[in-house]
Amino acid sequence: MINQNAPIGVFDSGVGGLTVVKEIMHQIPNERIVYFGDTARVPYGSKSKETVTKFSRQIVRFLQMQNVKAIVVACNTASAYALDEIEKETDIPMIGVVKPGAKVASEVTGNGKIGIIGTEGTIASGIYSKYIKELNDKAEVIGRSCPLFVPLVEEGLLQDPVTDEIAKRYLAELIDIDIDTLVLGCTHYPLIRETVGRVMGDKVTLVNPAYETARELKELLEEKNLLNEEPAKLGDDKYRFFVSDASEKFKRFANSIIKYGILSAKTINIEEY
Amino acid sequence: MINQNAPIGVFDSGVGGLTVVKEIMHQIPNERIVYFGDTARVPYGSKSKETVTKFSRQIVRFLQMQNVKAIVVACNTASAYALDEIEKETDIPMIGVVKPGAKVASEVTGNGKIGIIGTEGTIASGIYSKYIKELNDKAEVIGRSCPLFVPLVEEGLLQDPVTDEIAKRYLAELIDIDIDTLVLGCTHYPLIRETVGRVMGDKVTLVNPAYETARELKELLEEKNLLNEEPAKLGDDKYRFFVSDASEKFKRFANSIIKYGILSAKTINIEEY
Repeated sequence: MINQNAPIGVFDSGVGGLTVVKEIMHQIPNERIVYFGDTARVPYGSKSKETVTKFSRQIVRFLQMQNVKAIVVACNTASAYALDEIEKETDIPMIGVVKPGAKVASEVTGNGKIGIIGTEGTIASGIYSKYIKELNDKAEVIGRSCPLFVPLVEEGLLQDPVTDEIAKRYLAELIDIDIDTLVLGCTHYPLIRETVGRVMGDKVTLVNPAYETARELKELLEEKNLLNEEPAKLGDDKYRFFVSDASEKFKRFANSIIKYGILSAKTINIEEY
Repeated sequence: MINQNAPIGVFDSGVGGLTVVKEIMHQIPNERIVYFGDTARVPYGSKSKETVTKFSRQIVRFLQMQNVKAIVVACNTASAYALDEIEKETDIPMIGVVKPGAKVASEVTGNGKIGIIGTEGTIASGIYSKYIKELNDKAEVIGRSCPLFVPLVEEGLLQDPVTDEIAKRYLAELIDIDIDTLVLGCTHYPLIRETVGRVMGDKVTLVNPAYETARELKELLEEKNLLNEEPAKLGDDKYRFFVSDASEKFKRFANSIIKYGILSAKTINIEEY
């Protein structure tokens, strides 16, 4: 029997998943959230399926000990590499960001040409293509990994000629083949949405899986009768943040993404889980 | 009683330490080497002292189990944050890259103005400044962290207008204050030595701690009567490479740095040590 007042667990390799947290806070404001950012082992995007799955499994164990009622894998690489395996290992309902993103992309495309940008891991997995083609078998899906986007975002170069130049190189091929829809397949990328949008031009629709993930989470909780009916009230207890490394960067970044402000982030030893 | 034919242990957060391995292979070609690259948890440069020390301690335990006769901390961040603590915990002679780099810089400077570039961790530690001032109390040491250099190197942009532009921004302040010596305080940076040299101009001497570290290692082994007297012969057994994540990138990168070729890199679970 799952407690409907229990928190939702959300995890990511670091800070990117906070773009998903922000959408959850907005769309289902009554919900409590426990967030874990694996700042000691970030990034996941350049690491193997085995390693990302091992790390994700440890985090799920940690979140289970926080008695969460549902888990959101708010990291594209972990959703791509680990979700299928780890969701079999627990009864807690679990959703990732890839399926919701793939669903929107397959719905909004006109010409059926869909681009996916993400980490090396997400692109190598081919998972967006797999899900999109299940929904729209005529779709043509083209993936492009963009390894410098995360470091550029973390360096704060959100609006910068260097970010423009790198975006032009990464996206050139997608422009050439005339895609009309582009999935921001990494939770950091909404932060450079403007740059990506400018380079792609007005005719291309950008899909941010964070929005759709929060919507699907809400549906899932409704369906399972797990929505929190308590009146919304803000306090230390409502939104709790854990990290594996006491990085000041986490708090700085988190506060730039989430309007409520992150008062504290507790460091835990994730390798023990 | 340490066996003089035992291997030297060398570790880094990932591939950067191979620039040090290359120097060791060159300067003391009879030595066996066991290398560990922490590719599952790379990078260290943006992480805390506590985390970097914990990771380094695990790696030292792993290297001890390989019966190494000496350990080279071939990572500036680990040398800066962890070396003082971990060298107390074992009898195995240990050297890092910071002291050798600081020593050369304090010797070659003419005007006493020395720049240090490195990761956020290395620069925040202030350790280069501390060691340089012990050797030359008139020296003025100015540190600058360059967080994008490692991702740019790993993306292969060794000679590229984007790398030039980022280098100009990072180094502007060091040029303004007229340094005559610049320490490449991260093992990745020798790979963009040309770009850094071009931006700094001919009057600035670039110091690569890798060279000096290998020289000091040789002296240390001589002093302790631990030099390997066996004739040099190359085989799988002489140079062994271990990583924490089975990244293909490791082998690709390693082969671009070391001329002998890395035939294989074995993956181990470093969290168990």
